Amino acid sequence: MPAAETGRVVLVGGGPGDPDLLTVGGLKALRTADVVLYDHLAPLESLDLTRPDAVTIDVGKLPGGPRTEQADINDLLIRHARAGKTVVRLKGGDPFVFGRGGEEWQACAEAGIRVQIIPGVTSAIAGPGLAGIPITQRGITQSFTVVSGHTAPDHPGSTVNWEAVATQHGTVVLLMAVATLEAICVRLVAGGMDPGTPAATIADAASDRTRIVRGTVSTLPGVVAEAGIKPPAITVIGTVAGLDLAAGPS
Amino acid sequence: MPAAETGRVVLVGGGPGDPDLLTVGGLKALRTADVVLYDHLAPLESLDLTRPDAVTIDVGKLPGGPRTEQADINDLLIRHARAGKTVVRLKGGDPFVFGRGGEEWQACAEAGIRVQIIPGVTSAIAGPGLAGIPITQRGITQSFTVVSGHTAPDHPGSTVNWEAVATQHGTVVLLMAVATLEAICVRLVAGGMDPGTPAATIADAASDRTRIVRGTVSTLPGVVAEAGIKPPAITVIGTVAGLDLAAGPS
Repeated sequence: MPAAETGRVVLVGGGPGDPDLLTVGGLKALRTADVVLYDHLAPLESLDLTRPDAVTIDVGKLPGGPRTEQADINDLLIRHARAGKTVVRLKGGDPFVFGRGGEEWQACAEAGIRVQIIPGVTSAIAGPGLAGIPITQRGITQSFTVVSGHTAPDHPGSTVNWEAVATQHGTVVLLMAVATLEAICVRLVAGGMDPGTPAATIADAASDRTRIVRGTVSTLPGVVAEAGIKPPAITVIGTVAGLDLAAGPS
Repeated sequence: MPAAETGRVVLVGGGPGDPDLLTVGGLKALRTADVVLYDHLAPLESLDLTRPDAVTIDVGKLPGGPRTEQADINDLLIRHARAGKTVVRLKGGDPFVFGRGGEEWQACAEAGIRVQIIPGVTSAIAGPGLAGIPITQRGITQSFTVVSGHTAPDHPGSTVNWEAVATQHGTVVLLMAVATLEAICVRLVAGGMDPGTPAATIADAASDRTRIVRGTVSTLPGVVAEAGIKPPAITVIGTVAGLDLAAGPS
């Protein structure tokens, strides 16, 4: 098939949900797309800006387990690109922060499809920042670690060395960790983290429904359960989680 | 002073340099600003989009050491806001990733100035991603750590537990680490990281001058020196640094 007749795939990081946090390049890609595949963490309001004749597909609703679903998404990307379409894959956050962007890129590359990358704002950093918690602050921390809480610490599939995370002296950010929060916090304290380390959970970041609850690495799981926090939520653990810059006259 | 007469400060994360990686909200803020304070890592082309009567100030050129400079920037933000102006502070990357956004927010809040935050795309994630290295990939890594290399590992001001960083089993991303790369890599290997761990350095990320060099945590410092890599550069260490998704038909 001549390259001119083949379409392409644009992997767009949609940011944490607020359409103002989509990038200028991401917006341009959406406006010119023939086909848009999106899921639930993408900035859904931005879909209103697609062309009237663009096909939009909610791939968050595809049936089947996670593996089947990912293979189905890859197939859709490849099939539409092979039909000569410009396909935008609109993802929440950044495509490479636990977003399976790498897998989609790989699948397209193996199928001979051109891929363009438009990185996005990750909720791991923006969520705390908007809530008044800078994930780094001079004089406090020189590093931060972002960990997926999707796999529980005691699950055989976990590859995280939690003892190292507990003792690395930087800010710890947990994504997808509402269900596993208690197990992770217990593990961090057992691994050597000061039980009094400040901690906060931000639910529905970057939206007008944002809620923030605060405690320590020891108390936060109880606070989160008590508050009835549901995903999506971001947890920050470390000295910076004790800051509240948003408390000023904002 | 009545609130209505006081201006405000908008801290904007400008992304890694490509104007397409500025957010939609950041662009709107720039277009309406009375005063823009920017530094050298900000997307400078985007400054062309400010109002013709907007005052733009290059605070990357302020005289004095780092501390004086930051105090001067804070003073400028506060002074212009007190004069009733809408002041945009345009920073490279995200304001809270080693960007001193927290300090500027704090200074403004203490002065009674309203602050709005517009997070940005961080080069720590976007730089590797655009170069074909996903900082996370399912089946490979469930975490990543971003460390400032501004302070050398053996400097008394370093707070990083490099042994923990070396053994946490996630991707390690180093920013501002061209000068300290050899000391950091030696420390990581001494701290327990496999000397054969893939590693790559991306210079001038998100621009048409991007260069990427590759090696292992043991060999990369020599490769970077040999290639004459100058800041700004991003180093990625971990299994994902051995991937090259951009090698496909892109």
